[in-house]
Amino acid sequence: MDGNAVSPNCLSGIRVLDLTQFEAGTSCTEALAWMGAEVVKVENPKGGEAGRIGMPDPYYFMAYNANKKSITVNLKSERGLALVKDMAKQADVFTENFAPGAVERLGLGYDVVGALNPRIIYAQVKGFGEGSPYEKGLCFDPIAQACGGAMSITGEPGGRPVKPGPTIGDTGTGMLLAFSIVSALYQRVQTGKGRRLQAAMQDSVMHYSRGMFISQARHRTAAPRRPAAGNNAPSGIYPCKPQGPNDYVYLLTSRANPEHWPRLLKLMGREDLIGDPRYDTAAARVEHEAEVDEIIASWTRQRTKEEAMAQISGAGVPAGAVFDSMELTNEPSFARRGILQTVTHGEWQMTMPTWPVRFDGAPPPVNPAPILGQDTAEVFSEWLGLEAAEVEALRKQGVV
Amino acid sequence: MDGNAVSPNCLSGIRVLDLTQFEAGTSCTEALAWMGAEVVKVENPKGGEAGRIGMPDPYYFMAYNANKKSITVNLKSERGLALVKDMAKQADVFTENFAPGAVERLGLGYDVVGALNPRIIYAQVKGFGEGSPYEKGLCFDPIAQACGGAMSITGEPGGRPVKPGPTIGDTGTGMLLAFSIVSALYQRVQTGKGRRLQAAMQDSVMHYSRGMFISQARHRTAAPRRPAAGNNAPSGIYPCKPQGPNDYVYLLTSRANPEHWPRLLKLMGREDLIGDPRYDTAAARVEHEAEVDEIIASWTRQRTKEEAMAQISGAGVPAGAVFDSMELTNEPSFARRGILQTVTHGEWQMTMPTWPVRFDGAPPPVNPAPILGQDTAEVFSEWLGLEAAEVEALRKQGVV
Repeated sequence: MDGNAVSPNCLSGIRVLDLTQFEAGTSCTEALAWMGAEVVKVENPKGGEAGRIGMPDPYYFMAYNANKKSITVNLKSERGLALVKDMAKQADVFTENFAPGAVERLGLGYDVVGALNPRIIYAQVKGFGEGSPYEKGLCFDPIAQACGGAMSITGEPGGRPVKPGPTIGDTGTGMLLAFSIVSALYQRVQTGKGRRLQAAMQDSVMHYSRGMFISQARHRTAAPRRPAAGNNAPSGIYPCKPQGPNDYVYLLTSRANPEHWPRLLKLMGREDLIGDPRYDTAAARVEHEAEVDEIIASWTRQRTKEEAMAQISGAGVPAGAVFDSMELTNEPSFARRGILQTVTHGEWQMTMPTWPVRFDGAPPPVNPAPILGQDTAEVFSEWLGLEAAEVEALRKQGVV
Repeated sequence: MDGNAVSPNCLSGIRVLDLTQFEAGTSCTEALAWMGAEVVKVENPKGGEAGRIGMPDPYYFMAYNANKKSITVNLKSERGLALVKDMAKQADVFTENFAPGAVERLGLGYDVVGALNPRIIYAQVKGFGEGSPYEKGLCFDPIAQACGGAMSITGEPGGRPVKPGPTIGDTGTGMLLAFSIVSALYQRVQTGKGRRLQAAMQDSVMHYSRGMFISQARHRTAAPRRPAAGNNAPSGIYPCKPQGPNDYVYLLTSRANPEHWPRLLKLMGREDLIGDPRYDTAAARVEHEAEVDEIIASWTRQRTKEEAMAQISGAGVPAGAVFDSMELTNEPSFARRGILQTVTHGEWQMTMPTWPVRFDGAPPPVNPAPILGQDTAEVFSEWLGLEAAEVEALRKQGVV
């Protein structure tokens, strides 16, 4: 990296009481932390939150908890619960994504926390919305992707539905909630009042999959699976050498730009086909799609995906190589731009994406995800004025 | 809908000068509009922005431009450009996602707009980040999904990469930028200063695909395609009756919960296999995955996906049906909860998702996407104090 990392610092001074776990909730509070908020994860003293335990290593936890603090509190102890309620009085934001009903059973429902602190933004993630027939159901990212329509529009035509690799149900939901939280904070500057926010993973997946409702409005039938960009040819992925699992280039021709096709023919040495009525209109190319695809593929197979991307986009036709995680890691501009940064957590090291939006051109610095409970004494001192000896006594009693 | 729609109203009073087009930029400003900002789209008088023209119908435009205003301005005319610069002085946020270099060529680069209004949040979407080898390349959603790694982790194992149906490159980027804009607005309350924000679609896709860097850190190799949730069995989709293209149920067993497997066997009437060493541990089930999958599938094939989802999740194992857009539209709770609402734009009607996060339990009201230029006179009057006759004269001159 260029060494010029600067925190956007937009939310400095904002205190987030973070009871989230796994990814949907943690990705939300991580976004707040990238913006400079003080995010304090409250974790159980016996191993920490669900995304920290039961994993073979801490990489999952590291990816979604950068720049946060960690304290341990036994929420099942009366004193522990009282401490968290005291913290809620000091907090600007409260977040959780437990199973339905769990936070209320803990005694930290909105009725309790909102009454303790009417200025708090109380934000929850559930799998399904209040009023859904599934509102009591457990949810994980793939369940939300199935129930929210994303899988129905992903896959090969004629094949079975495929789960998108990006975690739209988890991080996708987290981003919508983070935006809503900051909007509520902005409003609070004027009103002085908190708000209650609820995001459902199924509903959030539908937001990212909205294109299916466009297709449905147009064709009056459920949106189909279609790997290409639209009803156009050539469009889609084409094989490149050396024919590894990700050696493909995606290219896109537009009905709005009739120049794309002759540009491709020229690039590919097939000027003989310019004007050929079999391929000369968008409709004709869709009709002869298999032939059209073979014209393209017989050229791309002779090139690497990087060569194909450079030459096709150089000819004025949108194209992109299918990059895998290792190829992205090895592309030096990501490290130089601070998009990828390497963090250390105990004995573990990981190269991970940072907040991707640039503020005044600078990348953000990253602090690795916290070790369990590393900030317990400091946070109880700063937020509640407890002395080190008091915290130590609480630790011996099993409260923290 | 319940008839109790209330705007979150968090950003009321915020003025957004919106030069966005297609989806990545428009989804960002639509989010701001859901929060109550006044979003004024500046469109060319000859047909409007690129997402409005060249489409067979306005559904695409309607999905990404709800709750906005539209004015027409010819940015190639000197007077038109001057008007937009005057508006920039009144705006809180400026947004654009033109091709690289285009907004600077128009004379509305950051150097110009930031100098006119040092309080403005100047926000841009490009395909690739400044400093990327592809920074001058055109980008559309599928290109970003190819280049950002999403396609490399989506598809059947052994099959070719598949483009995720959700528009992570477009709406995904828009959400990250919207969150960053509101964070900058929050900061401005204290500092009084604007900021320059830049989001790249490739970088944003990597954010939603972060799971691939976890896999890579763990296995020291590029993240593979894997439609199931993890290295566990049973996990994935299973066919249901009547075997239509989306008649599948997704189920998930967790290594952290050894009860999932006996629960499934009990539900499926295969108590005879409880304790069978071929399937009794997570490792054994992965080894015999084909057999395990057939045990599940022979049961799911006898049931609809809704029955399978209800019974499997009722037995305490996470499960979700693969719903398509029509099934979601026909599920009445979405309309009741205001997640789906029907809007009218001229002679066109469409059922579309609204902002999914609930503020104090209420759904947001939706105003349909604007007709081209419908707010020109009103906005020039309110923002710049122009009289109706002046606007009419500008129209005759081809300026607006």
